[in-house]
Formats: sequence, C-alpha cells, structure tokens
Amino acid sequence: MTYCVGLRLNEGIVMMSDTRTNAGLDNISVYRKMFVFEEPGDRVITIMTAGSLSITQTVISKLRHEVESVDASPKTSIMLAETMLDVVEIIGQALSDVTASIGEKMKRMDSRQPSAAMIVGGQRRGGDVRLFLIYAEGNFIEATEDTPYFQIGEHKYGKPILDRVVNVETTIEEGRKVVLLSMDSTMRSNLSVGMPLDLVTIRRDSYRIAGRERIEPGDPTFTAMSDAWSRALRDAFINMPG
Amino acid sequence: MTYCVGLRLNEGIVMMSDTRTNAGLDNISVYRKMFVFEEPGDRVITIMTAGSLSITQTVISKLRHEVESVDASPKTSIMLAETMLDVVEIIGQALSDVTASIGEKMKRMDSRQPSAAMIVGGQRRGGDVRLFLIYAEGNFIEATEDTPYFQIGEHKYGKPILDRVVNVETTIEEGRKVVLLSMDSTMRSNLSVGMPLDLVTIRRDSYRIAGRERIEPGDPTFTAMSDAWSRALRDAFINMPG
Repeated sequence: MTYCVGLRLNEGIVMMSDTRTNAGLDNISVYRKMFVFEEPGDRVITIMTAGSLSITQTVISKLRHEVESVDASPKTSIMLAETMLDVVEIIGQALSDVTASIGEKMKRMDSRQPSAAMIVGGQRRGGDVRLFLIYAEGNFIEATEDTPYFQIGEHKYGKPILDRVVNVETTIEEGRKVVLLSMDSTMRSNLSVGMPLDLVTIRRDSYRIAGRERIEPGDPTFTAMSDAWSRALRDAFINMPG
Repeated sequence: MTYCVGLRLNEGIVMMSDTRTNAGLDNISVYRKMFVFEEPGDRVITIMTAGSLSITQTVISKLRHEVESVDASPKTSIMLAETMLDVVEIIGQALSDVTASIGEKMKRMDSRQPSAAMIVGGQRRGGDVRLFLIYAEGNFIEATEDTPYFQIGEHKYGKPILDRVVNVETTIEEGRKVVLLSMDSTMRSNLSVGMPLDLVTIRRDSYRIAGRERIEPGDPTFTAMSDAWSRALRDAFINMPG
C-alpha cells in the first residue's frame, strides 16, 4: 500500500509520500513514489504515485524519456509544456496508455487489472500553483479553495486531521506539520505504509523546490513530533469535558 | 455503511453503534444495529451488527425466537447458555447459517455474496466480562489485554484516537468519551455513517446494563464535545513544535 498527500495552499504546495511497497505481506520493499522535475526559475513539477509499481515506474520512465528526447516538444515533454494543465494532460495520457497496455497483458492471463493514481503539483512561470489528482483512467481533477488537498493510497486514517486543520490560509510550515501528523496516524494504524518519507515544499511564484527532505526511520525530529502529538492528544482528551 | 466500536476494559464494557444504512447513496435509512439481551443480576449481552441488513435482521430474529421458544435450551438460547463463549457459539452458528442460506439465493441470481460481522459483549454471572468479534463466516476472536477493542464497518477514520488513548486501564467514563470522539471523526469524514447513535455501558460484575443512551442529531452535549475536540486538536496542533 501507499499513502501520499498533497496540499495546495495560498503560500504554495506541500507534498509527502511514504516509500513502502508490498506484494503480499511477506514481500516488502522501499521504492520512491515522489518524482521532481525542475527547471529553477521556469517551472517545478512534483509527481506522487500510488498503485501498481509496474504502471507507475513505466509512466515515470516514459515522461523522463520524452523530456530527454531530441524530438521533445510542448506536446510531449512536461518540461516544455506551456501550462500546468498541459503537463497534467501529458501525464494523464501516459498513465492511460501504460495502464491499457499492461491491462492487455493481464487480460491474456486472466489476471486482475492493475491500476495506479497520481497527484501532480507545481507551477509554471506565468501560471498559478496548481495541484491535480489523476485517476487510474487518466482523467483528472484540480484542488480548489474548498478542498485544498488530495490523498491517494491508504487515505482514511490520516484524513480526520486534514479535515480539521487544513484550509487555503494554512502556511507552508503548518502544512508540513499537518502532513507529517497525517502520515504518522496512518503509519501507526497500517503496517503497509512505512518510512522513509519524502517531503517537498514549493513556494508560490518561486518556480523551484523550496525544501526537499527524506525522513528516515528513527529520525529524531519526526519521533519527537510524533510523541508530542500523542501526548497532546491524550492531554486534550483527558482535559475534555465528557 | 456502518461504524460500531466496542471496548473491553477492566471496569467493564463500552459499546457504540451508528444507525445509518444505505442501499446506494440515494437510499438512506435509520436502523438499529445494537441489540441488548438482559436478565439483570444473571447476564447481560449486547450485540452490534455491520453488513447486509437482510442477514443481521434475520440473525437477531432467530436469536429472539430461540430465546422465547418453549423448547429453549442452553444449546439454543443465548439467555440460557452457560458461558459467554457458548453465547458467541450460538450467535456465530446463526450468522453462518443465515449467511449460507441467503448466499444460496444470491448465487441463483448471480448476485454478489452478502456478508455481515458482529461484535458481542457481555457478562454471565460466574464468568468474566468478555468482548468478541464474529467474522462473516461465523468464527470469532476475543478482545485481550493487548488489544482491548474491536471495530466493525467503516473503522479506519476512528482508529487513530483509539490506538492512542485506549488500554484496559481506561475507565468506563473515559471509554464513553473516546468512542464518541472516534465516532465523531468517522461521521465527519464519511457520509455513510450517521446519527442517531446508540451507546451502552456495562460495569464488571453487575450483570446488567449500566447506561443506555440514544444520541439524536443535534444533541447539545455531543455537539459541544465535538466542537471542544476540534478546538483542542487545533490548539494542540498550533502549539506543537514543527
């Protein structure tokens, strides 16, 4: 399983993913699920993936291939596309193509149809910061003022804290804190989501990554935050009228 | 959907269920999912149900029928069974029989196989307070010191608070508060779980219901608790080092 969450705030974007993948409970690995494409000062694009690794790896490889191709054009390369909308169109089309192609192979073997979903956030000079959720079929929706966040993968455990805390006025620093707590709640309740974590922040109108961290198991700051949150929750609980 | 949660504490048992059922999003109804069987001073049994209403209603009707039958025996009536284990055996058998019978009808129509799960808590004079989770197949497990709670239905949103707060030392009053907050988190994030709520408490070695409430929509105490918890969470979040 996987948990990825992205916030689209007035100040910019916060995106976080775990790195655990599993094919059964006895086959657990670490794979990066967050991919950054950046030309500082011009554009920054971050993609997070959930679902079949055979799909998501192929999509990312295809996107990289098109970016590096000598024939790269605004229609094929997310680093040349004119708007974030065009970027997401290219990614959505790649996801649809790869899913259909792998689905054909599966059908020949009567296997289950695999699928994947993605969250794409970023900003292109001249455009706004935008955050998209791409469905398994390749179509997509965009985060709005009313619903400024997206989750993919194992989303339920970490949703209550987002619902209570996040709105577009949330700062990047607060956003970083809330996605870490949302991830913490998820990892406590579901073994298939696990460390290390990847976290990226993008400030509006900077067209570059503001912060990029990998948080390893046993990270002292994360552990302290997790413990402090548990204590704060328990204290709040004890002091609350029943 | 449904959300039911039961705690087995040193002081006794706390059980809570919502009442919303839906056949599609446009067909929502209120059905009781909590059923109490009590002979004060001798035994108290509370059953909570999740899953196909056609199964759970039939199981409860069968159990009632056997209790009231002139041929009632410790092998057939949960009000005569000698231990809580025997009680759960009877309920599990009824669940298995009804599910198999309805499953046959479904198979003839190529329809999806329905299923249901149950939480059973209570105490029989001479025995301990016990809490069981009955799976769709009729087999069951019992709550222990290490894992003193069970959830059925839409369990993920409300699990983080339980994981952080509940242990066997939790008092009945605290347990009541935590199941209400767990339900509150679930209802905020999932429309298919809804008011009114049924809540029952059983104190160890009393062999009777200690408290039984139905919490209606707009209940001022519940609303105040829900708001206080949101405020407490936001305050804890704001004051936490990031």
